[in-house]
Amino acid sequence: MISVVILGAGNVASHLFRAFNASSSITVKQWYNRSSENMKRFAGTVPTTTDLSQLVEADLYILAVSDRSIKPLSEKLPFTDRLIAHTSGSMSIHELVKKNERAVFYPLQTFSTDADVDFKNVPICAEVLNKEHLNTLRAIAKAIESPFYRISTDQRQTLHLAAVFANNFVNQLYRVAHEICESKHIEFEILKPLIDETAHKLKDMSPYMAQTGPAKRNDKVTIKKHLKLLQNKNHKELYKLLTASIQKTHG
Amino acid sequence: MISVVILGAGNVASHLFRAFNASSSITVKQWYNRSSENMKRFAGTVPTTTDLSQLVEADLYILAVSDRSIKPLSEKLPFTDRLIAHTSGSMSIHELVKKNERAVFYPLQTFSTDADVDFKNVPICAEVLNKEHLNTLRAIAKAIESPFYRISTDQRQTLHLAAVFANNFVNQLYRVAHEICESKHIEFEILKPLIDETAHKLKDMSPYMAQTGPAKRNDKVTIKKHLKLLQNKNHKELYKLLTASIQKTHG
Repeated sequence: MISVVILGAGNVASHLFRAFNASSSITVKQWYNRSSENMKRFAGTVPTTTDLSQLVEADLYILAVSDRSIKPLSEKLPFTDRLIAHTSGSMSIHELVKKNERAVFYPLQTFSTDADVDFKNVPICAEVLNKEHLNTLRAIAKAIESPFYRISTDQRQTLHLAAVFANNFVNQLYRVAHEICESKHIEFEILKPLIDETAHKLKDMSPYMAQTGPAKRNDKVTIKKHLKLLQNKNHKELYKLLTASIQKTHG
Repeated sequence: MISVVILGAGNVASHLFRAFNASSSITVKQWYNRSSENMKRFAGTVPTTTDLSQLVEADLYILAVSDRSIKPLSEKLPFTDRLIAHTSGSMSIHELVKKNERAVFYPLQTFSTDADVDFKNVPICAEVLNKEHLNTLRAIAKAIESPFYRISTDQRQTLHLAAVFANNFVNQLYRVAHEICESKHIEFEILKPLIDETAHKLKDMSPYMAQTGPAKRNDKVTIKKHLKLLQNKNHKELYKLLTASIQKTHG
């Protein structure tokens, strides 16, 4: 049995709590947050505290807090030589002050407040300074059935950047497609099977192999027609730059 | 029973043939292509021909050919007053010469050569000049269990443009994410659950509601860090333009 204390009460903290709580090999011994507000709905399922001096002993303290809170919170921890981990994709492991044993436990997924998360689909990207602690992190990932990867700082920060392309930027293209549909009173619904299939294709082939369309086959007539149809300046710029990007990849 | 003749032997033609052939309420009476090459693997399951003068009578002739072949092929058809439809997202219905009854039967999906396609996930966007023919197209869509939408020329061409954003451009962002991962020897595999979830989220919320990340929360520190990490000039431009696009949407 691995004991954990969670610090923070945002999306990541809440989803980790639910997953840990559902696992028979992890005990969440305590949940800390500055204010009791966000922990209220879990009252009764876990001891909570808003007072750092009350923190109990555990195998791992997970600081699932905003990037800028990692350092000040790690400074305020009233103990030393215990294993602490932050969950950020972009912050250095050295944001955690060195009086404790430091690690990163970065769950690479997009978390919405209420949607249930299956941690089978949440790769855990782990980083440690002292190799000994890798086993604890791996055991926790295993307990919630998450794929586990040990990666370097540089790799994690690069992965976080790649995730911005694969998630935030992709979602913005969905948004642009939505805006284009709305401008002509077309149901965005019609595009959803295509969106699904575009993601689904990656199960069997690389994005390079999966590419199709006017940019790839350098279909100048269609490209010209599309640019004429586009009224919005930002959409037009995106069209040009992404077409150039595809042609650079496949040219 | 609706009888159909398919003209063309590319991806769309082959997938339509398979779907029609599997339906108990459609008969593919004949399959035409300029060369017999691509039809060979279906020999025995359907009468084929490479000679337009041999075309038999049918309720619908589907011209599933490249955009630029629609007009010349429709000119060469040795009959008049029959229902013919092209399958293009971007070409006008008037590309079909007017000696026949004209329609568009546009399947909005990305088709790979070998992957099986479930037509439940292929919305059919139909256009007719004579309303009478709508029932035939609707019945065919129903027979292969495809969602059916009647749309205008303008809407179809707009939808085709939106599909370029939601499919080709999204796929290019996957490719960029792949390149970024490769540059640091990170398995692209780690990103796949995130890619799935990003598409999956649209089942319950709009792309507007689903947006997260540094651009949306105007996290200048992370954005600056990411721009510094990006070496590739095209990737950097994409990052800037997509960040600006998100901020315009959410600002």
